[in-house]
Amino acid sequence: MQIGLIGLGKMGLNLALNMQDHGHQILGFSRTATTVQRAVTAGITGVDSLEEMVARLEPRRVIWLMVTAGQPVDDIIASLVPLLAEHDIIIDGGNSHYRDTLARYQMLKEKKIDFVDVGTSGGTDGARHGACTMVGADPAVFAYLEPLFQDICVKNGYLHTGANGSGHFVKMVHNGIEYGMMQAIGEGFEILEKSSFTLDLAAISRVWNHGSVIRSWLIELTEKAFIQDPDLSAIKGVMYSSGEGLWTVQEALDLKVPVPVIAGSLFMRYRSEQEDTFSGKVVAALRNQFGGHQVDRK
Amino acid sequence: MQIGLIGLGKMGLNLALNMQDHGHQILGFSRTATTVQRAVTAGITGVDSLEEMVARLEPRRVIWLMVTAGQPVDDIIASLVPLLAEHDIIIDGGNSHYRDTLARYQMLKEKKIDFVDVGTSGGTDGARHGACTMVGADPAVFAYLEPLFQDICVKNGYLHTGANGSGHFVKMVHNGIEYGMMQAIGEGFEILEKSSFTLDLAAISRVWNHGSVIRSWLIELTEKAFIQDPDLSAIKGVMYSSGEGLWTVQEALDLKVPVPVIAGSLFMRYRSEQEDTFSGKVVAALRNQFGGHQVDRK
Repeated sequence: MQIGLIGLGKMGLNLALNMQDHGHQILGFSRTATTVQRAVTAGITGVDSLEEMVARLEPRRVIWLMVTAGQPVDDIIASLVPLLAEHDIIIDGGNSHYRDTLARYQMLKEKKIDFVDVGTSGGTDGARHGACTMVGADPAVFAYLEPLFQDICVKNGYLHTGANGSGHFVKMVHNGIEYGMMQAIGEGFEILEKSSFTLDLAAISRVWNHGSVIRSWLIELTEKAFIQDPDLSAIKGVMYSSGEGLWTVQEALDLKVPVPVIAGSLFMRYRSEQEDTFSGKVVAALRNQFGGHQVDRK
Repeated sequence: MQIGLIGLGKMGLNLALNMQDHGHQILGFSRTATTVQRAVTAGITGVDSLEEMVARLEPRRVIWLMVTAGQPVDDIIASLVPLLAEHDIIIDGGNSHYRDTLARYQMLKEKKIDFVDVGTSGGTDGARHGACTMVGADPAVFAYLEPLFQDICVKNGYLHTGANGSGHFVKMVHNGIEYGMMQAIGEGFEILEKSSFTLDLAAISRVWNHGSVIRSWLIELTEKAFIQDPDLSAIKGVMYSSGEGLWTVQEALDLKVPVPVIAGSLFMRYRSEQEDTFSGKVVAALRNQFGGHQVDRK
């Protein structure tokens, strides 16, 4: 299959190389010329513009977006629409909000352009060597693309989750679960680290991956991290986030589903980005007001 | 190795059969005669009393306890002590609190009886076909027993975690992490279930186990559960707990480690055991008091 791949960051480039390994012909584009150049060095055929990409793709064109969620996706789609023909396919493989996806689907449907949402998991290594994808699409469009998903995913690693939007929705919830799992792992290891026992955290992660109830890829990554840096002294505990945990909690609020663990893990991420908190100042000031308790002053 | 195994419940019986498969000679005992009888039917040699067990074991005796945490462990140890010789070994393979383990270790040390704590994970299937064990023990005692752990665990599935008590400590934290992971999974699937998309929860669990970031044994078990009962309509969401989540949170409080996710998952378990809450009544009464808001009456 010929595929135009837009967005050649870590995920996009690895997906492009993965597709190419399976005999697909990739035309890669990024807004940043140096990014295209890096992809060309890695063995991808680059194009200089969307116009060139569309001109070089045979209809029924397949264009896979791997760009930052939000406005960049809208911008690319707006640029592509006048160039495409009916039933060309745009695939959004990024972490878009499923509500944005639903709106884009409606808009593109009116223009008879097929739109597919793909939630992609497995990290950069998965993108390169076998991803896990959740695909929201009209059944006929999914059937057309299925051989591609079969090629770029691990065995049994793709699913037609249902109607358009469901791929990004299921991926969003996947990431919400991931937030909670990761925070649980972090909390557990902080207890181990602070305990009075002398413990080998890499060895503990390793044994937990051999037969325990919590064996998982995340615990495998935990072992890797502790092997590289046994007390993680080289890094700070600042946990950034890129939206999907927040969206999962927002969705839970809309649906009135109590999610204390996913919400708590999100809040711990936000807390980790703050050096100090205003809520802490308020509580410290109140303790001082009513009881004369100690306040740390700047 | 000859092993006296006390406690022939689901975990104990499966461990006994596992040991026997590897050529160990098991003498099984339980306080309940029918439990011993069931083990005998399953192929285990039963004994009628601790006295008989100790008499039939060659010194250096190895006795593995697989009984309910707390007083039952103390009772069995108290009964065994007068029967044993110096450097006989008692292994506590159950879910004892590590502080109890430390106290028992001190008490048995004075009597020159070796005591080993083993945190055992992997569920009943792991106990039968290959467990994951975390072993707290004096190094020489661990070395003496290592061939046994090698036999009954999956490859790389045992670890000498360190000094006595550390096996149960590490297992406790393992279970704390497990609580958080399971609650995160539960919350995620409740969002999927309540969403407006029509989703196949078994298929989603399956695809998540093939290449996604959250692939894990717990998600494999999730798939199994949804295959058996696609909307879990046959069961209630009451989540019992057996202590280790609570102990993990208590330990976190002692060490002043913030564990909102593990604590939140513990509280959700407690909430699930309540039909109604007194805290809810208080809040409902207050809303009614200040704003005349609706109260549901009995």
